[in-house]
Amino acid sequence: MVNGNHDVKESTHQVVVVGAGPGGLMLTSNLVRYGIKTTIVDDRVDKTSTGRADGLQPKTIETFKQLGLAGPLLQRGVRIYDICFWNSSAETTLRRTGREIHYPPEVVDVEEPYILLVHQGMVEDIFLKDLRLRGVEVIRSTPFSSYSQKKEANSIVEVECTDLKTGRIRPFKTQYLVGCDGAHSKVRKVMLGAVEHTQASKSAWGVLDGVIETDFPDRWSKAVISSETAGSILCIPRERNMTRLYIELHPAEAPISSDAATEEFVMWRAKEIMKPFTLSWKTVEWFGIYKVGQRVAKAFSDDSQRVFIAGDAAHSHSPKAAQGMNVSMHDSFNLAWKINLSVRGLANDSLLATYQQERKKIAEDLIDFDFGHATAISAGDPVALADNFTKNIRFISGVGAEYSENVLNVLGKNPKGGLRGGSLLLPAKVTRYIDANPVDLQLEIPMLGQFRIFFFTPDVKTACAFLDRVCDEIASPRTILGRVSQAATASYAALSPVHTEMDEFVQPNRYIGASKVFTYSIVTTMNKDDVEIRDLPQLLQDSCWTFYLDSVMKEPTCTEKWLGKLSEHEVAIVNVRPDGYVGSIGRWNAIDVGADDEAVRWLDTYYKGFLKA
Amino acid sequence: MVNGNHDVKESTHQVVVVGAGPGGLMLTSNLVRYGIKTTIVDDRVDKTSTGRADGLQPKTIETFKQLGLAGPLLQRGVRIYDICFWNSSAETTLRRTGREIHYPPEVVDVEEPYILLVHQGMVEDIFLKDLRLRGVEVIRSTPFSSYSQKKEANSIVEVECTDLKTGRIRPFKTQYLVGCDGAHSKVRKVMLGAVEHTQASKSAWGVLDGVIETDFPDRWSKAVISSETAGSILCIPRERNMTRLYIELHPAEAPISSDAATEEFVMWRAKEIMKPFTLSWKTVEWFGIYKVGQRVAKAFSDDSQRVFIAGDAAHSHSPKAAQGMNVSMHDSFNLAWKINLSVRGLANDSLLATYQQERKKIAEDLIDFDFGHATAISAGDPVALADNFTKNIRFISGVGAEYSENVLNVLGKNPKGGLRGGSLLLPAKVTRYIDANPVDLQLEIPMLGQFRIFFFTPDVKTACAFLDRVCDEIASPRTILGRVSQAATASYAALSPVHTEMDEFVQPNRYIGASKVFTYSIVTTMNKDDVEIRDLPQLLQDSCWTFYLDSVMKEPTCTEKWLGKLSEHEVAIVNVRPDGYVGSIGRWNAIDVGADDEAVRWLDTYYKGFLKA
Repeated sequence: MVNGNHDVKESTHQVVVVGAGPGGLMLTSNLVRYGIKTTIVDDRVDKTSTGRADGLQPKTIETFKQLGLAGPLLQRGVRIYDICFWNSSAETTLRRTGREIHYPPEVVDVEEPYILLVHQGMVEDIFLKDLRLRGVEVIRSTPFSSYSQKKEANSIVEVECTDLKTGRIRPFKTQYLVGCDGAHSKVRKVMLGAVEHTQASKSAWGVLDGVIETDFPDRWSKAVISSETAGSILCIPRERNMTRLYIELHPAEAPISSDAATEEFVMWRAKEIMKPFTLSWKTVEWFGIYKVGQRVAKAFSDDSQRVFIAGDAAHSHSPKAAQGMNVSMHDSFNLAWKINLSVRGLANDSLLATYQQERKKIAEDLIDFDFGHATAISAGDPVALADNFTKNIRFISGVGAEYSENVLNVLGKNPKGGLRGGSLLLPAKVTRYIDANPVDLQLEIPMLGQFRIFFFTPDVKTACAFLDRVCDEIASPRTILGRVSQAATASYAALSPVHTEMDEFVQPNRYIGASKVFTYSIVTTMNKDDVEIRDLPQLLQDSCWTFYLDSVMKEPTCTEKWLGKLSEHEVAIVNVRPDGYVGSIGRWNAIDVGADDEAVRWLDTYYKGFLKA
Repeated sequence: MVNGNHDVKESTHQVVVVGAGPGGLMLTSNLVRYGIKTTIVDDRVDKTSTGRADGLQPKTIETFKQLGLAGPLLQRGVRIYDICFWNSSAETTLRRTGREIHYPPEVVDVEEPYILLVHQGMVEDIFLKDLRLRGVEVIRSTPFSSYSQKKEANSIVEVECTDLKTGRIRPFKTQYLVGCDGAHSKVRKVMLGAVEHTQASKSAWGVLDGVIETDFPDRWSKAVISSETAGSILCIPRERNMTRLYIELHPAEAPISSDAATEEFVMWRAKEIMKPFTLSWKTVEWFGIYKVGQRVAKAFSDDSQRVFIAGDAAHSHSPKAAQGMNVSMHDSFNLAWKINLSVRGLANDSLLATYQQERKKIAEDLIDFDFGHATAISAGDPVALADNFTKNIRFISGVGAEYSENVLNVLGKNPKGGLRGGSLLLPAKVTRYIDANPVDLQLEIPMLGQFRIFFFTPDVKTACAFLDRVCDEIASPRTILGRVSQAATASYAALSPVHTEMDEFVQPNRYIGASKVFTYSIVTTMNKDDVEIRDLPQLLQDSCWTFYLDSVMKEPTCTEKWLGKLSEHEVAIVNVRPDGYVGSIGRWNAIDVGADDEAVRWLDTYYKGFLKA
């Protein structure tokens, strides 16, 4: 059981997470980094050893980079850059009918434009090691049984699990409970009652992981192989020389019952589809049959906003577009920072309400896409599949997951650049002023649960009076930003993250020294020789590691890519959420009378929408 | 003591390495990867905890990437991209007189154009962990005492060390002995006798590592600060928020004796030089005085070529250009693969002779540069220092370390592209045919102690007959390549590297499945749709993971950058040494009668120069 490095006045946990798959571990890892005392239970004896999910999408790779955990995965994973289509019919032998770049740069703007094939157990392992460094272990062999809430008890949730080693009930009192316990989630069943969540079509596929021998030439690309007579295969290269094959069990021409689909039968069918190429297995690591329908739970939290579900517990779908692990982890990524601010008493109820608003939309987008995708693979129609892909490729990559307007996301009218409220930051390189390092601005500031407030201006000196006044106000108790910062200082002093060896190298205080909830940053197109750190307002001088020169990219510059052109005296402010989504964007002419007061009001209004102090 | 995973018939070691600094550990790590049973002893109780070397140059970062060991260093190190110059005199206050990019891309063509500041102890730690995975531990508290050789004993070296824990002599018999035991090397003293190696000027500097407080604005750049009256400082940002200051003790105007240079005095002088900026220390991690002269040992090996010295044991110089650790490790990098082939009986004596030829030249180049560099820093003349830098910046980065003509390096006349015998490969991106992954060709093929033989051709199909014939011959016992490959198969079966978890992911057999000594590779500018793996000669089909499309770079393509333009029927062959240096380059018109035989003879002649079987 985990208590962080603090004395706990009572035995109430702050958060209990049920399920130590990638989603539950992502949530726990995030919460523990933010300093929240989190307990994670799982019914299994150990982490996933074989099978299950295996693909990380570009946005997920970026997320792991932000967490400082990508290294071992990038070193070990297999990268898929292209997709090939093969077709045969009664008249024509199997032939390549198409080959496409999986993530064309003109459509999907990412630093890592590939799917990274890494086994789910490796992803879990990365998190388990990360948690261990922070003093947290998964409580294993402890399935969740039920929970209850008494209204008079300040919404404390009473959780019951079963310790399989002793057979006894293991109770937990907690402020928040999150079910990351998979498609058959018990947390969901208690939360939503007997009401089943919506459900669409089912299809059945066999899955085989192993080392194959074949003369099929595209076995190291992602390949969709469709035989009009024998059905379809999706072929995915894997780490450790393995290949994963998804083999259709219900093709129109030759359906068989899922129960009759033994490993031998599935292998036989795969060989039929692959003809005239040879196919045999040197080893088989995992064989499974899945019949997953597309489903979305009707609610992702209870009315009190103390109990949540995430990942497969909240939505399920076909695994063939390598979405499950990715969407699950990003449910957690979305929820964690909101729970952090709520536990600390720094957020209104409106903040936690955005979790369901935002992630239910993504789940529905996913189901819409998945239905068409699975149908196109079964149909074996390369044109339909390619169309479905092109239409959805940004979504599949993860960077196309976009949220609707709410208290966090202000969509704004006529944005001149590429940034949008409710969408992710775009990749952009700038130079860090203080040490001349070129950095990726969208990833650069360590993720410590804080918002990022970026000022953009072509000229720090003419905007000086404007910046001085805005910075003075947001640092003062006259604004919600100042008040929340002050309250956060006390909260983090009482409840602070475990210090790790990496902190010595990251130096988090460079980013949250001025405020635990906001990192202030300024980006300018000025030449380095024309500006010194002492030219900045004091608040930005105190945050001197986040002063950037927009000097790396040309046509467009970072400023232009994100915001369009700024005129000579213009200042833009971009509010970025802790999860890297853009919140809102404002622009002012810095030398207009009253522009500074207007900017202060604009910031105050935005943050009052969901923060309190 | 280390025996790899083999039974040893007798108690003779294959290699004994004295000294577990970065040079000795690099050597051991390389040898153990190649399957050589290596024992490493050190007089110290543990790895370096503070002080000493701290900078990795671009080429060294590349080397660590090749070894798969760069990740933790890149994640933890501080990156220096620029250098600033500050000057003051009796008349003028301290002011910035210049600012330069440290490694301008038009001069230094590298993927990582910065100095990576990481403490020597971190570098040692990376190697220690790597060795542990391969079953090797450093034998500590065991200083080297002496060695002797009996001629009749097949040049076996008898080494004596002292076990400090028991006080007893600890003897080792070994085929090879390498002294990586620093500037006061005992191995060198035994090998060269009382004869001191050549020595040039001495200068004395104080060094301070710690967390400083200062309002000096360029503290996170490399900065040379020269006061005409008080002397010079070299200021280097370090990991963990630290700064290293090198402070001159013997400026012309105010020299003091090294013995009088206490920590307090050195701090006082640093403060004087930095005026009017403030300077104080929050913590001091290390303080040292160094007086290192520039020296090169007269020989780097004994006459029998069984005993070698490397690193500071062979050459020493000022630390201020961050060269020591880098050059030392590359001495080892140069020596390791040559010892591997020699232990296996696959090399002539001419191969080991190239170690001294090549690395003594680099040591002399280093001393030449270092003398001018140290003088310019002392003189405080920014123009002279900048000139010295510009002239030497390729050498400082490590990519300018070039070897002279010998059996390995054929310089060739009128090369049309950028590659030169005796120089490193140049960075170039290509697409791996089999899985469409874009890769860095200079780093792509795992370093397994083998040569890389690259065929370049604009058209695999018209060059088909030529390639078929050449590949047939080099795979057959009619050539030295075939005979060495056959002998190597037996040698590696008897003496094979320890299998590690990473091998499962790297799949080394993809690269040395066809030959343990050569990876065969082909690079073509053809479109992917116009060529299949089955169009290649069998030897290249067997090496299908090293078939590359020159489709990533434009103007110049990889082919053009490396070799200049190839005409329609031309085939170029590039022999690349196991350490990434170009050996020789040949070009043929593939459709000329007899061109294939000529190419085979050319390859045979080159490899006969130093290999045997």
